[in-house]
Amino acid sequence: MKKFIPKKSVNLSAWYNQIVLAADLADYGSAKGTMIFKPYGYAIWELIQEHMNKLIKAKGVENAYFPLFIPESLLNREKKHFKGFSPELAVVTIGGGKELKERLIVRPTSETIIYQAYSKWVQSYRDLPILINQWCNVVRWEKRTYPFLRTSEFLWQEGHTAYATHAEARAMTKWAMAMYTKTYEEYFAIPGYVGKKSRAETFPGADTSLTYEALMPSGKALQSCTSHDLGQNFSQPFNISFLDQQGKTQFAWQTSWGLSTRSIGGLILVHGDDQGLRLPPELAPVQVIILPIKLDSKILEFCRDLFSVLDQEKIRVKIDERDDERVGYKINKWELKGVPLRLEVGEQELKTKTVTLVSRDTGKKAVVGLNNLAGQIKTVLDQIQKNLFAQAVNYLKNNTYEINDYSLFKKQMNGDKGFLKAFWCGNPKCETMIKAETKATTRCLPPAAKKEKGKCIYCQKAAEYQWYFAQAY
Amino acid sequence: MKKFIPKKSVNLSAWYNQIVLAADLADYGSAKGTMIFKPYGYAIWELIQEHMNKLIKAKGVENAYFPLFIPESLLNREKKHFKGFSPELAVVTIGGGKELKERLIVRPTSETIIYQAYSKWVQSYRDLPILINQWCNVVRWEKRTYPFLRTSEFLWQEGHTAYATHAEARAMTKWAMAMYTKTYEEYFAIPGYVGKKSRAETFPGADTSLTYEALMPSGKALQSCTSHDLGQNFSQPFNISFLDQQGKTQFAWQTSWGLSTRSIGGLILVHGDDQGLRLPPELAPVQVIILPIKLDSKILEFCRDLFSVLDQEKIRVKIDERDDERVGYKINKWELKGVPLRLEVGEQELKTKTVTLVSRDTGKKAVVGLNNLAGQIKTVLDQIQKNLFAQAVNYLKNNTYEINDYSLFKKQMNGDKGFLKAFWCGNPKCETMIKAETKATTRCLPPAAKKEKGKCIYCQKAAEYQWYFAQAY
Repeated sequence: MKKFIPKKSVNLSAWYNQIVLAADLADYGSAKGTMIFKPYGYAIWELIQEHMNKLIKAKGVENAYFPLFIPESLLNREKKHFKGFSPELAVVTIGGGKELKERLIVRPTSETIIYQAYSKWVQSYRDLPILINQWCNVVRWEKRTYPFLRTSEFLWQEGHTAYATHAEARAMTKWAMAMYTKTYEEYFAIPGYVGKKSRAETFPGADTSLTYEALMPSGKALQSCTSHDLGQNFSQPFNISFLDQQGKTQFAWQTSWGLSTRSIGGLILVHGDDQGLRLPPELAPVQVIILPIKLDSKILEFCRDLFSVLDQEKIRVKIDERDDERVGYKINKWELKGVPLRLEVGEQELKTKTVTLVSRDTGKKAVVGLNNLAGQIKTVLDQIQKNLFAQAVNYLKNNTYEINDYSLFKKQMNGDKGFLKAFWCGNPKCETMIKAETKATTRCLPPAAKKEKGKCIYCQKAAEYQWYFAQAY
Repeated sequence: MKKFIPKKSVNLSAWYNQIVLAADLADYGSAKGTMIFKPYGYAIWELIQEHMNKLIKAKGVENAYFPLFIPESLLNREKKHFKGFSPELAVVTIGGGKELKERLIVRPTSETIIYQAYSKWVQSYRDLPILINQWCNVVRWEKRTYPFLRTSEFLWQEGHTAYATHAEARAMTKWAMAMYTKTYEEYFAIPGYVGKKSRAETFPGADTSLTYEALMPSGKALQSCTSHDLGQNFSQPFNISFLDQQGKTQFAWQTSWGLSTRSIGGLILVHGDDQGLRLPPELAPVQVIILPIKLDSKILEFCRDLFSVLDQEKIRVKIDERDDERVGYKINKWELKGVPLRLEVGEQELKTKTVTLVSRDTGKKAVVGLNNLAGQIKTVLDQIQKNLFAQAVNYLKNNTYEINDYSLFKKQMNGDKGFLKAFWCGNPKCETMIKAETKATTRCLPPAAKKEKGKCIYCQKAAEYQWYFAQAY
């Protein structure tokens, strides 16, 4: 099975494409640019949803569902927004056997269809805030499928909130980014740089966009989610207005924020190794695989007892009882699928009432007794989760460079890439030229960035802030 | 609030349309035929998903996700299937700014797109069975929106399984219908008649369709979900074939089964009354509303203590602390929203350390002490769940008639309607004529129906089985 898969360090993109198929995460769809989320891949998304729904609902944000189709005139009401999404739209022109009078756009994002409803729902300050999230599919046209990372249709959540004051909206964009940071650090075990987008990289229709930028093993950045302060850019054209406590008409202040199945692409890239996936336990559909070394009835009985003990403690566990695969093949298979912990049970274990634990992250073996087995295993899973995060943090640190010389900047972007921290004067022309010459774009400006006296990496004019630059997926 | 809503018994359809809006379940979308699931309505769907996912996963069926877009040629590969869905398709003709070479159909159901993948995944009997379910949106063109009951886009689950033998597939269609029956009886508190569809009413592409037919207060039947034995009708054109244990090539046997957000329409219709919704506790987003009779700090403190006690016991509970609505208004509001149990707390309750429980189903009040309050409330919620089901069972029984005279049949269909049990010879012509003359269609033939010697209600020729007839939504 594994011999066909190239090494991660040798050909990352071939490794990625093959791992996605071989680990049963996904397959290609019939239409161009589409993909199928196979059960193992979809189960990761279900775990992400479960974790995030808890955080989102605890904040008082409620889930809802808005229509898939947006009348073209509605999408066109905020001009920058429409312009930004125009090149990637899928358009329904026929419905019920008839040519439609107005074309319907398959949602690329739902600001317009949702805010049309908000304008009906909001009359008084008493109707605010509105705190809504939706989990759904969206479509942005792509010709080539890069599973999870770039597909015409993807799954995501999009939060859409409206407030009486700008301060509340701003606080929400920060809350959303903090929620995403927790999600990435604690569940995905993926660190990243949080910060503000430059004007050119801001979401079409937003005043400010916050982003979480993670580093992939290619040295490229993955924009892993975003949180937008929409100001009154939508509330004005959509007339989301309300009477305030003084009886004056005001426009609402809005936010939107999203995280998509693209994140699963990041998960695969960051943690995988030459043996296949390495899933952090928090997002592993199977956390523990029990592997009987012989399919002997006593060993199987022992395995099933272990299964019950772990299953009762809500550890996601499976036994591999297949009789048509050899043990070596099974070991490879579960390593390929990235299961964090393998539990081997043979005659030795049966005799001594022990089990052999093999950690996927390090390959280390440990023989442990059965006393408080679930507790022991939870501790090991926790260590694996932390170790994967620590490895990714190291990689991020080791591949972030402060650079103040443009020739070094170019050299780095021609070589190992990574995040380059460099002064930028804020002039969009410099940003454009840097992109043209190095493929690197501004990724973000961290909120804690201090004003300094520097020189723009490109034009050498005065520059106050150091931005993160990287090539992006 | 309520004075604008017509009585359920006087104008059912106006009552329905207004209740849906007034209870904050849904709103109309911008495009024709579409609806918005507002948070309160969507929360019901989330509860349905939670209950059903447990049952589905316990059976070993895994969730996955397949593409929204189906290339037209793929949908056209099973001819009856294509013909059946043709009139209600939404068609994407433009993608990424260009006219598409092949039109893409927005999935009306996913047999074809899923089975195209199965044909790749299945080679050997070892690859079977395939047990997959997906939760998604589907589109079947509608000009007029009837919220939940009839909308262009709706949400559903669709199970798709493939086996080496017909017996396994048949067993699965029965399992799915048993799972739906449990869901309807125990969670929706809606009884129904389970049975086989006539040829004319069978799903396009299926050999046999099983259905769950519930009775609405209009006297009309609601087809509440279906489970199809697809035979080899799809595996042949899609070439889902495998080598069996003897090395012979065989085609797979398949099933599909679905339940949609239409079910929420049934929930509203069956249990609602002139005061609004009456939600069965298992599907109530809020099971208990705590209503402070005065917004006095000691009463509020007491309410918050009660909240903690119930919340800890996983009862879905809220306190209504709004200061801009009077108590009478709040009572109406929560009755309208169908919350099963209201917990009133005033000075009397504070003094005597009691709470007053008001059941939504009967309006009965009871004053109870705080000892084991969560346990007491769970008992009451359980009673409400059972009572709503018992009421619906009675209604179904009282509106099911055995009829062997066609003039009586016609009279009943012109009057109160309901389910009519009558002999039918099986000739599609009789079925067509009955529909033309009475609007009633065959709903189903129960699996336990016995062979009898009867005469067809229409043509008077020999007939062996009594079918359920009704007008349908």
